[in-house]
Formats: sequence, C-alpha cells, structure tokens
Amino acid sequence: MRIKVLGSAAGGGFPQWNCGCSNCDRVRRGLLRGRPRTQAQVAVSPAPATWFLLNASPDLRQQLLQDLEFAPAQHTRGTPISAIILMSADVDGVMGLLHLREFQPLKIYATASVLRVLTEENSLFRSLERSVPPVQWQALPLDQPIPIYQRAGDAVSALTCKAVSLGGGYPDYVSNSLRKQLAKEEAVIGLEFVQDGKKFFYAPSLSGYDENWKCLAKESDLALLDGTFWTDNELIDVRGSGKTAREIGHVPLSGHDGLLARFPSGGKGRRVLIHLNNTNPVLDEESAASKAVRDAGWEVAYDGMEIEL
Amino acid sequence: MRIKVLGSAAGGGFPQWNCGCSNCDRVRRGLLRGRPRTQAQVAVSPAPATWFLLNASPDLRQQLLQDLEFAPAQHTRGTPISAIILMSADVDGVMGLLHLREFQPLKIYATASVLRVLTEENSLFRSLERSVPPVQWQALPLDQPIPIYQRAGDAVSALTCKAVSLGGGYPDYVSNSLRKQLAKEEAVIGLEFVQDGKKFFYAPSLSGYDENWKCLAKESDLALLDGTFWTDNELIDVRGSGKTAREIGHVPLSGHDGLLARFPSGGKGRRVLIHLNNTNPVLDEESAASKAVRDAGWEVAYDGMEIEL
Repeated sequence: MRIKVLGSAAGGGFPQWNCGCSNCDRVRRGLLRGRPRTQAQVAVSPAPATWFLLNASPDLRQQLLQDLEFAPAQHTRGTPISAIILMSADVDGVMGLLHLREFQPLKIYATASVLRVLTEENSLFRSLERSVPPVQWQALPLDQPIPIYQRAGDAVSALTCKAVSLGGGYPDYVSNSLRKQLAKEEAVIGLEFVQDGKKFFYAPSLSGYDENWKCLAKESDLALLDGTFWTDNELIDVRGSGKTAREIGHVPLSGHDGLLARFPSGGKGRRVLIHLNNTNPVLDEESAASKAVRDAGWEVAYDGMEIEL
Repeated sequence: MRIKVLGSAAGGGFPQWNCGCSNCDRVRRGLLRGRPRTQAQVAVSPAPATWFLLNASPDLRQQLLQDLEFAPAQHTRGTPISAIILMSADVDGVMGLLHLREFQPLKIYATASVLRVLTEENSLFRSLERSVPPVQWQALPLDQPIPIYQRAGDAVSALTCKAVSLGGGYPDYVSNSLRKQLAKEEAVIGLEFVQDGKKFFYAPSLSGYDENWKCLAKESDLALLDGTFWTDNELIDVRGSGKTAREIGHVPLSGHDGLLARFPSGGKGRRVLIHLNNTNPVLDEESAASKAVRDAGWEVAYDGMEIEL
C-alpha cells in the first residue's frame, strides 16, 4: 500500500490568504524555517495506477497537477482515481469535489448523513452528475470493513476500508432542519485501510470525545493523525476571539489531556501529524513545540511526503 | 485603473486534471510552446491596496498567494480585497468564494437571480456568514452604473461598475423549481468599469445571442473578452460527444459569425482574449489559430498579465 500526502495543512492552508500572524507572515517572506502547505489531502494506492482520494481538498486541482502519477494517459480522457472517500461535510474536505466536475465518471463514498448534506442542500454538486455515467454516491457504513479494491483472482491483496466514528459534529453551514435528521455518529469519521496485513489509520479531525481511535492508532503500521492545534486557546490568542480547539472538534497536541499524552503506549507503527493549522507553532521547525513533537517520536507530514507499507 | 489577470483559462484550467488531449498532454510534458493557465480570475484596482475581484475562481487561493499585493499587512488579519463581483452562477466563477471563508467580512455583488442560486440552494456558502460582520450579499442591477469606490472628497476619480446582460443561461446544476423563478437576463453579465474617463469592459462568457456587448467593447480602452473556443465543434471533436460552443454559451473565435469577425471596427482600445479552454488551439503559440488571432490585432491573456489604463 502506498500513501501520498498531497496537502498537509488545515482549512485555509499555510499561509492563509487573509492572515498576517507570525507564522503566515514569516513563511510569505521566506523568513520561516518551515514549508508552505496546501490543505490536507491524502491518496492511497493498492496497486499501480489505482488511487483513492481521502477527502477532496479545496486545493485539489493544484495538488493533482503537481504529480504526473495522477495524469490521464496520453490522448485519453480519464483518471487513475478509483474513488473519493469523504470523512466529514467540512468545507475543506468536500469543496475539492467541484474541481472534479469535468464530465468524469466518479464514485464518492461518505456516510449516509454526509451524503444528505451534499446532495439535499447543495445543488452545486449536481455539476458532477453530467458525466456518463453520472457520479455514484455510495453510503459508507460504520465499523464494517468494505472491500474497495481487489486484483482479479487475488483475494489476499484486497484493500479494505473501515469507517469509525470520531465523535465530532456537523459544520456550522448545515441547515437546522436537516441537522436534526442526521446521525450524530456519522458526522466525522476516521478510516482504517488494510492490505496484505498492513494497517493504515487516518484521522485528520480527532475530537477527543470518543476513544474509538486509540486501538486503531495503536495497532496501525501508520497512524496519520490530527495535528491541527498545539494548544486549546490557539485561535483565540491569534484572532482575539473565537472558539477553542476542542470546541471545533480538534484535541490539541500539547497538555496533559492532549494528543501526544493520550496516544497509547506500546504501538510500533509510524506516528505522523497532519492537518496543521497556520497558527500551530509546530510549523516553525525551530520552535520548542516542533522539538517536543519530534522528541515524542512523531513525524510531521509535508506536501509531497510518500510512505510505503 | 489597474487590471491584473490572475488566471486566464476556462473551467478546468490548462492542463485539465482528467484530460490527455494534445494541448494538455504537451503542456504537462513541457513540449508545448505555450503556458499552463489557472482558471479565469481578474482583479481591478482603483487605488493602492484596494482591489475588486471579478468572479471567484476555483484556483483563487493559489492565485492570491502568488502575488504579495493581496497579502494582509504584517501582524493583522485582513485583505486589500474590497468586494467580489460575480458574473454568473457558473461553478468556475463562484466556487472560489469558499476559499474566502476564513472569518473575513466580505461584500459580494451579483444579480438578484444569481444571489438566489447561491443562498437558497447551496448551504455551503453559509460558511461565509460566520465572520463579524457576516458577508454582505448585494444585488447588482442591470444597465445602471453604480459607484463602488470613491476616494474621500474626490468625486472625479470614483470607480463605477455597470452590469449588462450577455444573453447566456443558468448552469445545469440549478434546480428546475428555482430556475423557473429566475430572470433570464440576469444569468450572465458583462461588466463595464469607468474611472477618470477610462473604460474597461469584461465579458468572459459571451453567448453571441445578444448585441449589448458590441458598443461597450468598441468604446472601451480595454476589452477583455471570451476566448473559450476556436471552433463551435471543438469539445465534440476532442471528447467524441457533448455540446457545441454556442450551446454552452460561448461564441467561438473563428468563422464568419465568430467573435473575431463580429468585433466592431473602429475601436481604439486593446482587445484581449481570456477564459481559454484547454482544447483551444490558440494556447499553442505555434498554431495557425494563434497567428490568426495576433494578425487580427488581438492579444491573449496569461496568468500574471497586468494592464494599466
């Protein structure tokens, strides 16, 4: 199984277009030891020329063009992208679907509730239905591994994908009338991929209000987890107002109840942080936070990172 | 008045993510004499640090980051973007609004009908309403110059903006129930900007079914016009099926009834083509079509082009 990180920042990216905070300002001027990052986007490949996109980032067009592995074959229309799996209805995880509207037949998985948000109150996504055949919206069940790829006659190397609830909420934009009808546990999911005995667990939005993630993260060969914020008050400190990290569905990295402290001991896989917000001091490789993350045995994802399991 | 072209291609950009046509394939491999282009995006400035965005391209984040004139001042949150003016409800002209969702107060102009499409059947745009103050949706009347910028105490240098109907239709994604209630003439507009006696006319989607554009284009100091397709059958030739250029609201450039032939004689301003589709032979600077365009006195817009009137 191959995994590519096409984008590694939280919503808004790094730098963020309207932000002049210390991190954004320094990276714009080339004064930060650290990299610019597009919005979080991961792709998984079980076989050559076969890719699954995990979420659909607002920067998806730019991200796909930067890597010739995602280009169509010469003189054809097409794509090596087999399907897209959405993990929430957050704008920064679904907006990129609109980049894929160019008459391309697509299969899109999400929980039944997230599919309702997209198809019942956002007519823009009907632009995906002009392809022949039109987009296939597929409901993804919770806690049930589904086979999403299998080589002909080779059951062993099948790739399965299991969705688990991560305890987050629906985004603010969802109407109150629809919100009442949606299943709470289908709002934000993590994904476990298994192939040839190797396990990859992806959870870019970890609310911390649910312990589902711990076993999956511990047992995985690669845990790619929510690195959005370093502290709970980070957004408030920079903007002067707003919500805490936990209030918007992200357990912060630091502190006695943060992700680094809560990560189960004894796991043997790689632990990598992704979905870093522009305000996170970990983006500055010379910061104490960056050192603390590395000293605790974690890596920090960057655009272009590749991992093979 | 300063004008910047931040993106110059039609929807999908150049290359287009899922297209392996001769143009896309050659530009990907560095074998084309011609430039890659992001999706059409223009900005107009009547004064220093004051910009109006014309449409909101799917590539807007990437486009704004590439030019430090659009960055916020150091240690502030903010933007030199005064307002966004939408010219249709097409995905490639409105999707970029979602790039601007980062709690930034914004003013967005569009015809009353286009505002209804965005706010009544696309809840995603409510993510713009979380700012303080929330986004201001402003209805733009037809055929009536409105002052959108004025320096304190200096009426002469005011910038006015006039919307004119261009005879196009609403995009396929709009629901039938809403479509019946919308004013046909508000579907696709052109914009005339006037400041200090200088005139700039912008019309990236020219259906050709209406003659409104001719006088405005002739009288302008800069006419930035629809260069989407070279021939009426271009999409069908590449894809093997689909609609003609005219059927999707773009008069082709070539032919006795094409834009080049129909452009009124006697105008003294610059004539520039924008919104080039990936299939357009004009993108290949060595093509006969490219030569024909230049011989007819036209320029072709590129990402990063700047014009001062």
